[in-house]
Amino acid sequence: MNARCITELTLIFGKDHILTELEDMIAYSYDAAHVEVLPEVVVFARTTEQISQLMRLAYREKIPVTPRGQGSGLSGGSVPLQRGIVLVMDRMNSILDFDPANRLITVEAGLTTSEIDRTAVSTGLFYPPDPGSVSFSTIGGNVAENAGGLRGLKYGVTKDYVKMLEIVLPKGDIVRLGNRCVKHVAGLNAESLFVGSEGILGIITTVTLALLPIPEHRESALAIFDTLENAAQAVADIIAAGVTPSTMEFMDNTTIKAIQNFKDCGLPRDAEAVLLIETDGEFHSAQAEMARVEAQVKKNSARQFNRARDAEERDRLFEGRRVALNALASVKPNLILEDATVVRSRLPEMVRGIIDIAARYRIMVGIFGHAGDGNLHPTFLIDMKDREEMVRTESAVKELFQLAIDLGGTISGEHGIGIEKKPFLENQLGEASMNLLRDIKRTLDPENLLNPGKIFDMPAIY
Amino acid sequence: MNARCITELTLIFGKDHILTELEDMIAYSYDAAHVEVLPEVVVFARTTEQISQLMRLAYREKIPVTPRGQGSGLSGGSVPLQRGIVLVMDRMNSILDFDPANRLITVEAGLTTSEIDRTAVSTGLFYPPDPGSVSFSTIGGNVAENAGGLRGLKYGVTKDYVKMLEIVLPKGDIVRLGNRCVKHVAGLNAESLFVGSEGILGIITTVTLALLPIPEHRESALAIFDTLENAAQAVADIIAAGVTPSTMEFMDNTTIKAIQNFKDCGLPRDAEAVLLIETDGEFHSAQAEMARVEAQVKKNSARQFNRARDAEERDRLFEGRRVALNALASVKPNLILEDATVVRSRLPEMVRGIIDIAARYRIMVGIFGHAGDGNLHPTFLIDMKDREEMVRTESAVKELFQLAIDLGGTISGEHGIGIEKKPFLENQLGEASMNLLRDIKRTLDPENLLNPGKIFDMPAIY
Repeated sequence: MNARCITELTLIFGKDHILTELEDMIAYSYDAAHVEVLPEVVVFARTTEQISQLMRLAYREKIPVTPRGQGSGLSGGSVPLQRGIVLVMDRMNSILDFDPANRLITVEAGLTTSEIDRTAVSTGLFYPPDPGSVSFSTIGGNVAENAGGLRGLKYGVTKDYVKMLEIVLPKGDIVRLGNRCVKHVAGLNAESLFVGSEGILGIITTVTLALLPIPEHRESALAIFDTLENAAQAVADIIAAGVTPSTMEFMDNTTIKAIQNFKDCGLPRDAEAVLLIETDGEFHSAQAEMARVEAQVKKNSARQFNRARDAEERDRLFEGRRVALNALASVKPNLILEDATVVRSRLPEMVRGIIDIAARYRIMVGIFGHAGDGNLHPTFLIDMKDREEMVRTESAVKELFQLAIDLGGTISGEHGIGIEKKPFLENQLGEASMNLLRDIKRTLDPENLLNPGKIFDMPAIY
Repeated sequence: MNARCITELTLIFGKDHILTELEDMIAYSYDAAHVEVLPEVVVFARTTEQISQLMRLAYREKIPVTPRGQGSGLSGGSVPLQRGIVLVMDRMNSILDFDPANRLITVEAGLTTSEIDRTAVSTGLFYPPDPGSVSFSTIGGNVAENAGGLRGLKYGVTKDYVKMLEIVLPKGDIVRLGNRCVKHVAGLNAESLFVGSEGILGIITTVTLALLPIPEHRESALAIFDTLENAAQAVADIIAAGVTPSTMEFMDNTTIKAIQNFKDCGLPRDAEAVLLIETDGEFHSAQAEMARVEAQVKKNSARQFNRARDAEERDRLFEGRRVALNALASVKPNLILEDATVVRSRLPEMVRGIIDIAARYRIMVGIFGHAGDGNLHPTFLIDMKDREEMVRTESAVKELFQLAIDLGGTISGEHGIGIEKKPFLENQLGEASMNLLRDIKRTLDPENLLNPGKIFDMPAIY
């Protein structure tokens, strides 16, 4: 990048909000995925207008721009694949408007997601999506990746709460899409297109979100099963009984053993599966739902069903789930955390299929995740320095994606396509859909300068 | 249209599925809006492939195509503004897949929406969106217009239930967008773009919808208020108390009097407002919520609060609301039913503003609608043969739209922009957003052949 551009960027952002030293570039070269590319310059935005000016400069000079929240994404969304400028959003972190009467909050995109909840709770409201990163990821990143979490089945995901977005389009135009009203059909539903767009269509600068009243009561329980089949059938039966748990987390035997080796959380090492289940709502309603859960769990021969009597007991029940990823991470030097997802009824086939794939490729796999919404996290435990194992792992991951597609599912439930899943997307969506997505990208970003190389590659015509 | 095109259309659709006679054209020249344009030919699709062939022919011959469900739309979405071909979808009305285990149903777009519920109910599930037209409108039309209904506050609108769409794009490509999974982030969220697109971006051929378990219990009540302010404050207080009623319908004094003149539904003619409120859920939960509703209603000096003790009493309470539109229609020869919407907290200003506008232009107006989600239906009662009154009405409607925009609301909550609201859309969305919408339209439909003239006009470059 030439000195004139750096000077111009300094004028736009101010000298305290731009970095160009190599050691700083390293800090912004990666996120929570396994790819590193050094940017040429890093800028920190404080206003939407600055970002608009940035994109006009980028378009004039043909410089790629990669927006970044806190860099906690698991698919490489904030890695500057084609170098250029990294635009860091976390200094735009104000709460612009909190409107409890209408159950709405408007914030800048760089605000940490858990701060939204911290504000809402004072008036008895909460923001339901709870990705694992909720205490450090930004809401802009959550919207860009359409983040999920543990409560998807009952409460949906980020896109279900986005009411309005202010967005800087690739060529620098500022648009405000959506509406504060519950019902709104004036103009195309364009805001939805930017939710889950992984930063390739526009830069999200402010977000207006819907909030919900905090449920009066929660019931929590842990169910332990001798067989995977029983656990899977219990999930199906709970749903068939008309119950919609707020959480229904699954952990397999490998995950259970890793947890117990990491820290004694009281889980039996020989159990094939556990389910952590929560119901919530009005006091009697949450209790009645949990009673129906218990009936279905017992019908399916659960070895144990432990219901928490208070918050302390709940914390203890959930401790294993909380440490699961760290426990798995301690087994081998590296892990590859996937999020292939199927509909609930195909979970048994999916779990068996993953175990079979791992066995055939001789790779350790721990499976945990969100059974209620079919969003599993098969976690391959590997040593990336072992080249031969890496080759086997790549084949295993490829088969995992194909399995999810064959079962009518998706290669990504909540982490995004980003960089490494790109080659598998067309197999899921088909050529005509890929053409549509590329047409939309080309319309908004004809020079392919905004977060290039994510979700799909663009043809060389660029 | 030349004879060769008619012949080719007959080959595609079959001679029993094409109409060309004038009297038939008249039947397909209008919907529930106030615009009539004769098509040149009407075809009835039975397969997605036929529609793909149709659009390829339309593109080759530059013939406009207007898709149509049952023609119940209130904004003119299915009126063939530029003549050409009307494509009727109601012969594509099969249920393709019902999957209660995953709470999903896949149907052809021409199926009547209430048929979905009829299928779902057998397994204890239901489809929440309930537009007034639910018993005769098609699900494809509901998706194209993003239909709402009485339960928006608690249950959302059509877009909240659309999981997958099969769509024929304007140039004839067939795409399948979205996924059956609760969580799905593979590729852009493109299916959302077609929900509420009013048939200008693609032709919806099949729809996969999420279903919910039928609530165990409903509580219904009618609250009668002496002043609008008390009714509005009761709505705000109910929400602030953390209650989310499944229905909270509002009717003003003009509507009440029209109802009582039409049929005695036991409503007091001197009341300024009534609220019809329902809570639902688990038995105790629905009861507890209604108890909190009652407390808030009484705090706001309701003259009466009548709680239904059984289904029969509920039917009686709701009778007034059910006949409201017919009652208003009987007052004057014509009515103009609007759906300008504001956030809940601005409802009192909106209602007072509407009454003020109507008074200044000397037009009768009845106001009823969905108070819980701010979606009112101000209904102007007029005689369209009275030219001078029509001129005043047009000015009043224009002021109504401006009022909704000034209060941060939307000119359409659930009916769509269609034809007559087109001139007001840019005022709400701004120029940059309008450019974005036009860019998307141009990308998908470069010749502007699919439902031209709806939502916005395209520049003459077409």
